[in-house]
Amino acid sequence: MTPPLSNRARLMPASPIRKLMPLADEARRRGVHIYHLNIGQPDLETPAPMRERLAQYRERVYAYTPSVGTPEFLQTLQEYYRGLGLRLGLDELMATTGGSEAIQFALFACANEGDDALVVEPFYTNYRSFATMAGIGLVPLTSRAEDGFHLPPREAWEGALTPRTRLVLLCNPNNPTGTVYSRDEVEMVGAFCRDHGLFLVSDEVYREFVYDGREAHSALSLSGCEELVVVVDSLSKRYSACGIRLGSLATRNRELYQACVRMAQGRLSAPGLAQVVATAATSLGPEYTRGVVTEYQRRRDVLFEGLSGIPGVFLRKPEGAFYFVARLPVRDAEDFARFMLTDFQQDAATVMVAPAQGFYASPGLGANEVRIAYVLKEDDLRAAVALLAAGLDAYRKARDLAPLPGAPAVDEGVDFHVPAEG
Amino acid sequence: MTPPLSNRARLMPASPIRKLMPLADEARRRGVHIYHLNIGQPDLETPAPMRERLAQYRERVYAYTPSVGTPEFLQTLQEYYRGLGLRLGLDELMATTGGSEAIQFALFACANEGDDALVVEPFYTNYRSFATMAGIGLVPLTSRAEDGFHLPPREAWEGALTPRTRLVLLCNPNNPTGTVYSRDEVEMVGAFCRDHGLFLVSDEVYREFVYDGREAHSALSLSGCEELVVVVDSLSKRYSACGIRLGSLATRNRELYQACVRMAQGRLSAPGLAQVVATAATSLGPEYTRGVVTEYQRRRDVLFEGLSGIPGVFLRKPEGAFYFVARLPVRDAEDFARFMLTDFQQDAATVMVAPAQGFYASPGLGANEVRIAYVLKEDDLRAAVALLAAGLDAYRKARDLAPLPGAPAVDEGVDFHVPAEG
Repeated sequence: MTPPLSNRARLMPASPIRKLMPLADEARRRGVHIYHLNIGQPDLETPAPMRERLAQYRERVYAYTPSVGTPEFLQTLQEYYRGLGLRLGLDELMATTGGSEAIQFALFACANEGDDALVVEPFYTNYRSFATMAGIGLVPLTSRAEDGFHLPPREAWEGALTPRTRLVLLCNPNNPTGTVYSRDEVEMVGAFCRDHGLFLVSDEVYREFVYDGREAHSALSLSGCEELVVVVDSLSKRYSACGIRLGSLATRNRELYQACVRMAQGRLSAPGLAQVVATAATSLGPEYTRGVVTEYQRRRDVLFEGLSGIPGVFLRKPEGAFYFVARLPVRDAEDFARFMLTDFQQDAATVMVAPAQGFYASPGLGANEVRIAYVLKEDDLRAAVALLAAGLDAYRKARDLAPLPGAPAVDEGVDFHVPAEG
Repeated sequence: MTPPLSNRARLMPASPIRKLMPLADEARRRGVHIYHLNIGQPDLETPAPMRERLAQYRERVYAYTPSVGTPEFLQTLQEYYRGLGLRLGLDELMATTGGSEAIQFALFACANEGDDALVVEPFYTNYRSFATMAGIGLVPLTSRAEDGFHLPPREAWEGALTPRTRLVLLCNPNNPTGTVYSRDEVEMVGAFCRDHGLFLVSDEVYREFVYDGREAHSALSLSGCEELVVVVDSLSKRYSACGIRLGSLATRNRELYQACVRMAQGRLSAPGLAQVVATAATSLGPEYTRGVVTEYQRRRDVLFEGLSGIPGVFLRKPEGAFYFVARLPVRDAEDFARFMLTDFQQDAATVMVAPAQGFYASPGLGANEVRIAYVLKEDDLRAAVALLAAGLDAYRKARDLAPLPGAPAVDEGVDFHVPAEG
């Protein structure tokens, strides 16, 4: 007699980003080159000083490191935040296994099973996995493409409160939308949390990636919210070092910090080699970040311009991170994404995109949207745009698309593009 | 208004292994050398081929690795198990962030919040952290020092069942007791799980560490239990590479495996540099393991002989791992452990031990026991034994110990030692 799996195991969602991977593998076996617009794996090199630090590593025993992180890494973190004008004690910072673990610690510490977390949708799809493990309900507040995915007004937040809401889970700059919230928006969320006694778990792993002179406002800078805020951070994107799995958690709430310490002790330590690599980040001046941001901004421009020229594609100009959500002139973006991998190629190449439905909690939303990541070089992005345009054309012909109810314009091939802000 | 932490955050236990660390730091500042018998951080070098593999690593982008592990690492795992006579498909194996994450995946997948797991106490203390996060109750089955901490008989297992028992969590060879379960014992647990439809989560991270010609029997070898067994493994101890945080999970249950894949996708990937290091393990022949085991067996002998000579100390000869639980002639082993760090030194040195109470779920048990790890060199172990003997003497004088109720012999200084088996 085989026992049944737990409910949470059965509810655990497959990654909408990775679930089409087998189709991509299959396409590759057929000799088709795939431009990956579906995942946020930057192609930029991990900075040389970090790789050199690893090459110089000579320890003979790869021993456990302290549960909260090595003193050297914590120091590096402290200096990094000081550079942002944020003063944090070493005992307000903690190394985690990627930003993922920091989110998990925060969710487990802030809410009980059966409690709710308010989250702006579309949201980073893996929040759903962490919430499922923690038994926490994600109550979505919908942000809309037409508003550039900026935050809904305070009234909407009040309306979304449930008796069991314990925290707000915010991602700024936002994955998947690329939206950078203004100071006023962040202040509004802070005031909402203060007024209702909610924790504010702020995922700021794309902090550096802001364009057109914008600034990301950390929740750590909100006055009067010191006890509420947990900031989730990661070195993955900042230093193009996704594979080392090193993130961090920052909070000024002593009790919450101590609870996270106890969870950290349970799993012994964060990856040690990653912490060695990370300490070399201090040698990277602001010019490193400027260079990276300039590169991504250029890529964004290429993609935005290119996609805006495809009939029926709608998006506002992305403001940060290296993702955006675009609406396509299709009914079922997942079907389209599959089509691109199974039925389409041009000059032995195609494009992989992430269907956006998995980034929404509200049923039905995002069905005609995709998340696009711009972590490829400019020429590759231009090629990907051309393939997307040709693919959409081929798809609409192949599916013999009837006009969409409520959105006939899309099927008429009308350009949905509206002028970009900022 | 500061919101309250979650219940699980408040219930999350501090590590009994690490909670006395501040006292140790303080002692070090006073210039006292500390022999660490409290933690399982081997002093052995990480094997040279693994360190060389890292030194040769030349990737320029430290990218995400596949959620289930790199193909190379999975291959290494498969070969390793094949060497043990265990045939596993690549899709029955998964890389995890240390054995810790494998235990977490297994617990979350096998039981709901409010369900129970049966566990033999004393047990690896961090099981409590993982169970608390998962909302799972640990129902203890007590093993006793007098029995060499071997498994209680089947009747005791039947008696410990609750309506919500979903799994058995077994650790073999055992941390903290150093007990290696016989084939019959493992078969008995397998039959119990089969008869009651329970998952069997088997933590076998000390598999290689068995002495006096013993053999560790993997739960993966139990016939008729293919759908029930999840084996937790780790490279930390096997290759003295605790800090890299690389473990693995093995199960032949397809559905369970897929649920773990979805959890793995949520956190993206296991540490990448660790997987690079790990693939070099294939170049280590059986002579590597033999050498390590010989070394640990010698250390065990030194400690066992030394401790057996201290009046009032009781233990049976440990059979595996590199820990054991010893009973001391004190009422409160935690008070004694603190005393050793705060009030005792001899030739500017002292010993740190882990109070065993935190390794039990039944209240009151283990109060006069400590877990001792033998991960130091022989000379250091001899010095530690001398310090423990002197420390016990000093402690009993300092505390002016009255005879213990129900165990007067202890306070009479009578040798509790009984001849060792095996």
